[in-house]
Amino acid sequence: MNEVQATYLLDAKLDSLEKKAEAIAVGLTVGSWTNLPAVEQKQLERHKGRVIQTKMVSDQKAIITIGYPSLNFSNDIPAILTTTFGKFSLDGKVKLMDLSFSEELKRDFAGPQFGIEGIRALTNTYDRPLLMSIFKGVIGRDLNSLKEQMKAQALGGIDIVKDDEILFENDETPLEKRIPACQEALRASYEETGKRTLHAVNLTGKTMELKEKAYKAVELGADLLLFNVFAYGLDVMQALAEDPNIPLPIMAHPAFSGAMISSPDFGVAPGLLLGKLARMAGADLSLFPSPYGSVAMAKEETQAIARHLTEEDQFKKAFPVPSAGIHPGLTPKLITDFGIDSIINAGGGIHGHPGGATAGGKAFVQAIDAVLNNQSLQEAASDHSELATAIELWGGE
Amino acid sequence: MNEVQATYLLDAKLDSLEKKAEAIAVGLTVGSWTNLPAVEQKQLERHKGRVIQTKMVSDQKAIITIGYPSLNFSNDIPAILTTTFGKFSLDGKVKLMDLSFSEELKRDFAGPQFGIEGIRALTNTYDRPLLMSIFKGVIGRDLNSLKEQMKAQALGGIDIVKDDEILFENDETPLEKRIPACQEALRASYEETGKRTLHAVNLTGKTMELKEKAYKAVELGADLLLFNVFAYGLDVMQALAEDPNIPLPIMAHPAFSGAMISSPDFGVAPGLLLGKLARMAGADLSLFPSPYGSVAMAKEETQAIARHLTEEDQFKKAFPVPSAGIHPGLTPKLITDFGIDSIINAGGGIHGHPGGATAGGKAFVQAIDAVLNNQSLQEAASDHSELATAIELWGGE
Ligand SMILES: [Mg+2]
Ligand SMILES: [Mg+2]
Repeated sequence: MNEVQATYLLDAKLDSLEKKAEAIAVGLTVGSWTNLPAVEQKQLERHKGRVIQTKMVSDQKAIITIGYPSLNFSNDIPAILTTTFGKFSLDGKVKLMDLSFSEELKRDFAGPQFGIEGIRALTNTYDRPLLMSIFKGVIGRDLNSLKEQMKAQALGGIDIVKDDEILFENDETPLEKRIPACQEALRASYEETGKRTLHAVNLTGKTMELKEKAYKAVELGADLLLFNVFAYGLDVMQALAEDPNIPLPIMAHPAFSGAMISSPDFGVAPGLLLGKLARMAGADLSLFPSPYGSVAMAKEETQAIARHLTEEDQFKKAFPVPSAGIHPGLTPKLITDFGIDSIINAGGGIHGHPGGATAGGKAFVQAIDAVLNNQSLQEAASDHSELATAIELWGGE
Repeated sequence: MNEVQATYLLDAKLDSLEKKAEAIAVGLTVGSWTNLPAVEQKQLERHKGRVIQTKMVSDQKAIITIGYPSLNFSNDIPAILTTTFGKFSLDGKVKLMDLSFSEELKRDFAGPQFGIEGIRALTNTYDRPLLMSIFKGVIGRDLNSLKEQMKAQALGGIDIVKDDEILFENDETPLEKRIPACQEALRASYEETGKRTLHAVNLTGKTMELKEKAYKAVELGADLLLFNVFAYGLDVMQALAEDPNIPLPIMAHPAFSGAMISSPDFGVAPGLLLGKLARMAGADLSLFPSPYGSVAMAKEETQAIARHLTEEDQFKKAFPVPSAGIHPGLTPKLITDFGIDSIINAGGGIHGHPGGATAGGKAFVQAIDAVLNNQSLQEAASDHSELATAIELWGGE
């Protein structure tokens, strides 16, 4: 059936559950049903929502799944969200847990343009997790300071360095100056190490000006785009991803998404928003809070995000990027929990290394090598001073 | 000071409150502070966030206000949300309660293009709340059915009829056919009654195609635009509002906003999102759940929204539109709670009238007249059969 199926977790009582589900299926589609004349029922039949599942999961909470015929909406994310969780998002305790799309509906979404394979080809990294680091404390700094920070990170063996998501257009380091300056630092690092590092540039500004700005980023030689998609809208990211004149991978940042995913009773499940929908809308990489740091997300939520990003589908796979609280000692756990098709992303765990960002990067590279060679970190640390220092500071198996 | 001040409600303990607030002010701006050399502190001083307020409001909850220098962000809503509630939205129990903008920052936002006065001029309605009704059960219906419904509503004396927000582009009643058909119905009604009714047309589709579609709506003679702004993004609405080629009032619909405003612990306060930010971003009318219906919002939340829409500011005032569960018997309460500068908006309370939508509209007109003439509804009902029928069915003082 050509429909989108929405699954909700909501407050309900067993004796009125079926009735409630039917009221939602009718109310959010044809409006009324039982009172309609038979001839109108016949006309509207193919537009009527249908109840697919109802199940009490506790004394007060139920899961229900409603199917919405695709005839009712244009096949874009704003229409889908408005149909499945528009007015209904305001209807008491209700959380949108999942959306399932028929194959035909998915065909209108291009998904990631590069995906895991594309990013691996760009970074020339195979059979291991990628290593990413984040510019730190760049607000108010000048271009030279960014260049130094970039080179120090790259020299550590980082695959991708991402802009800080709170770095916007500013006089000192606007996108136009930042891209060439960082590329210069990356060339210098490449000459020293023979290892290429990519720069994910924060694409910011007004929605209607993003495409022009992205074209400029392309022209200036940007490697990837970082995008605060949830402060804009998933549909905006989709437009960037699907534009053939923006042939750059997109890294979706979860900024502002906490306003939608954090409550157990309201909003949208993290796996759906940061996983399934981010991938459908074109994210090649999706960042989310790791289950380890002080700003932690529950492990099952992080795994749901990663699963949605990497499970078999008609879309390319996208890289899960668990972020925050990551240090080299967590590498074995990260690889166990997220596999090698994931990105190890650190900020403080690289810049906070007593030997500086370069040593911080090296410690991670050493930790990843160790895990892939079935070596314990302790063992590897005896040969690698950077890793030894990191483990002494932050711990690690 | 040229800054945005963000107020949060968050979990905190008295003995670590100041430290926590300072960590936020630093962490979300310059990144680190106490360890910086004096020369760097001097350079970064004007970029550093400042703690403006900290206050425990219960044993576990505090209110804190942080000021973010405008130097740090481009003056657009995505940048402001990312700065004030980006990563921080994911940091445990924290809700964004308010944003205060310096006068200089507000100057970059045009606000409502018509505002309450402009809408009053368009509808030729003064010194009373406006009356609005909503198309019901239009999915799967043909153009004739919409025309009939439109005319029936208009004949009842409605000021503005709004599309159902879940009506998207479809073969039977796309925007291109719907606008002229509805205008024809409105002309027919005008010829009978001498009263003009306006049609708010649902602007839908992909973000990057909205402007073109809005131009078409203008060309086809649309009166207002209905917009599911929270399924897109506030910045998208701002772009529509500020485009001189789209000289139409915008009605912001709260679809999907429940995902952000409903939790007491997470997300964004309703008054901020549906009130202050909607107005700044150009909404001339803002719909929100009324405090009366079965899908009710707490009264103080609805009043906060209305206050933000109508208080003195450099922006034009926008119409509060409390919606859902509205019937003629609630008119005195609506006017007491929201004043005459508000819109009385009904769906079932108009279409569900035993005499049909025209009688439903008339009952509201009669109720509004009664309240403005200091007459009780019971008293007015003795002269007005439509109102009498409505009160019998739904109750009323
Ligand atoms: Mg950051
Ligand atoms: Mg509706």
